[in-house]
Amino acid sequence: MSEALTAFARERDWEQFHSPKNLVMALTGEVGELSEIFQWMSEEDSKRAAGHPQHAQAVRDELADVLLYVVRLADVLGVDLNAAAEHKLKANAAKYPVSKARGSSKKYTEI
Amino acid sequence: MSEALTAFARERDWEQFHSPKNLVMALTGEVGELSEIFQWMSEEDSKRAAGHPQHAQAVRDELADVLLYVVRLADVLGVDLNAAAEHKLKANAAKYPVSKARGSSKKYTEI
Amino acid sequence: MSEALTAFARERDWEQFHSPKNLVMALTGEVGELSEIFQWMSEEDSKRAAGHPQHAQAVRDELADVLLYVVRLADVLGVDLNAAAEHKLKANAAKYPVSKARGSSKKYTEI
Amino acid sequence: MSEALTAFARERDWEQFHSPKNLVMALTGEVGELSEIFQWMSEEDSKRAAGHPQHAQAVRDELADVLLYVVRLADVLGVDLNAAAEHKLKANAAKYPVSKARGSSKKYTEI
Repeated sequence: MSEALTAFARERDWEQFHSPKNLVMALTGEVGELSEIFQWMSEEDSKRAAGHPQHAQAVRDELADVLLYVVRLADVLGVDLNAAAEHKLKANAAKYPVSKARGSSKKYTEI
Repeated sequence: MSEALTAFARERDWEQFHSPKNLVMALTGEVGELSEIFQWMSEEDSKRAAGHPQHAQAVRDELADVLLYVVRLADVLGVDLNAAAEHKLKANAAKYPVSKARGSSKKYTEI
Repeated sequence: MSEALTAFARERDWEQFHSPKNLVMALTGEVGELSEIFQWMSEEDSKRAAGHPQHAQAVRDELADVLLYVVRLADVLGVDLNAAAEHKLKANAAKYPVSKARGSSKKYTEI
Repeated sequence: MSEALTAFARERDWEQFHSPKNLVMALTGEVGELSEIFQWMSEEDSKRAAGHPQHAQAVRDELADVLLYVVRLADVLGVDLNAAAEHKLKANAAKYPVSKARGSSKKYTEI
C-alpha cells in the first residue's frame, strides 16, 4: 500500500506537498469527515452504519482515506508502522493488566 | 492486528465501550496528540521528526495509536479495511488522472 | 480577549510560531483533548459532564483552550470573528428554513 | 450568540441532537474542514489566506462554524465560556512566566 501511494504521489508530482506536517493536517481533515458521518447518530445506530444504504459507502471511503494517509505519513517519516503498532500493543498490555483493568471505565478513561 | 485488538478488549471487558461512535472520538483524540507533536514545527523540521531524540518515540507511538483505532473501528463496523483502501486507491486514480493532476496544487487542494 | 492573547504571545516572543497553519494544528490538538473527555461517555452522561467532580475542570479548561485558539487564529488572519459568525447564522437560517428542517435528522446530517 | 443558537435549534426541533457528545463530534468535523483549507499551504501562504480570492470566504465560514459550535457546546453544558477563558488565560500566564518562556520553542512545544 505504501509503495502504491508513493507511486501515486510521484506520478502527479505531489511529493512536494507531502511533508509530515501537511499530511497530519490532511489526516485531520479525513477524521473530520468520518466524524461528520457519526455526529448525530446514537451509539446503537453507529453499530449498523456500515450496513446503512445512506452511509455504507461513505463509511468505507472515509475509513480508507484515514488509513491511506496514516500509511503515507508513516512512509515519509520513515516509520515502520507494523513494528510501531506491535510495540504499542505490548506496551498497552503492560499498562492495563487484565486483573486491574477489567470492566473499569474509570481506568479506561485515563488512557 | 484486528484479532489481537478484539482479544485485548474482550479480556478487559472493554467491548461495551467500543461502539463505532465512541471509537471515532478516540481516533480524534489520537490525531489531536499527533497534531500536537507537529504544530510548532516547520515543514522542514517535520521531515526529520522521526529521527529527533525528543520526538521519535512519540511520533511512533501516536502513529501506532491512530492505526490501532482505525483497525479496531473497521472491525466493529464489519468493514474490510484492505478492500476499502484498494477501492479508494482506484477511485483516486480515476479522479486525478496523471495528465491533468501533474504538479497542480490547485487541483490538489480540491480533494 | 484578542488583545490579551496578542500581548501574551508578544511578551513571550511566541508570535513567530503563530502562523495560521500552526494555530489550526494547535486547535486540532485542543479539540482532540476535548474529545478524549467525552469519548467513552454515553450521550446522557455527557449532559452532566460539567457538573461531574472528575471532569468539570477539564471540560471548562478544554473549552477555553479551543475558544482561545479560535480567537487567536481569527486575529492573525485578520478575520472579524463576530461578523463572520453573524453572517453564518443568517446563511444557516436561509439554508435550513424552519418549515422544512423541523425535526428532520436526515436534512440535519447533510449539514 | 448563545441565545440565537438556542432559538435556532429549538425552532427546528434539533435540541434532541445537541448532546455535548454529539456537539464535540460536530466541532471535530468543522475543525477538519478548517484544516483542509490550510493542509497544502506553506506557513507564509497561510498568513494571507483570509485575503485570497479562492479561500477568503471558506476561511471566514469555517472559523464561524467552529465558534458557533463552541458557543453552543458551552451553552448545553452550562459552562460560562468567558469566565472559563479568563481563568485559563491567568493559568497560562502563571504556567509560562515571561522570564522563562521567552522565545523558547522547546518549552512551548511542551504545552
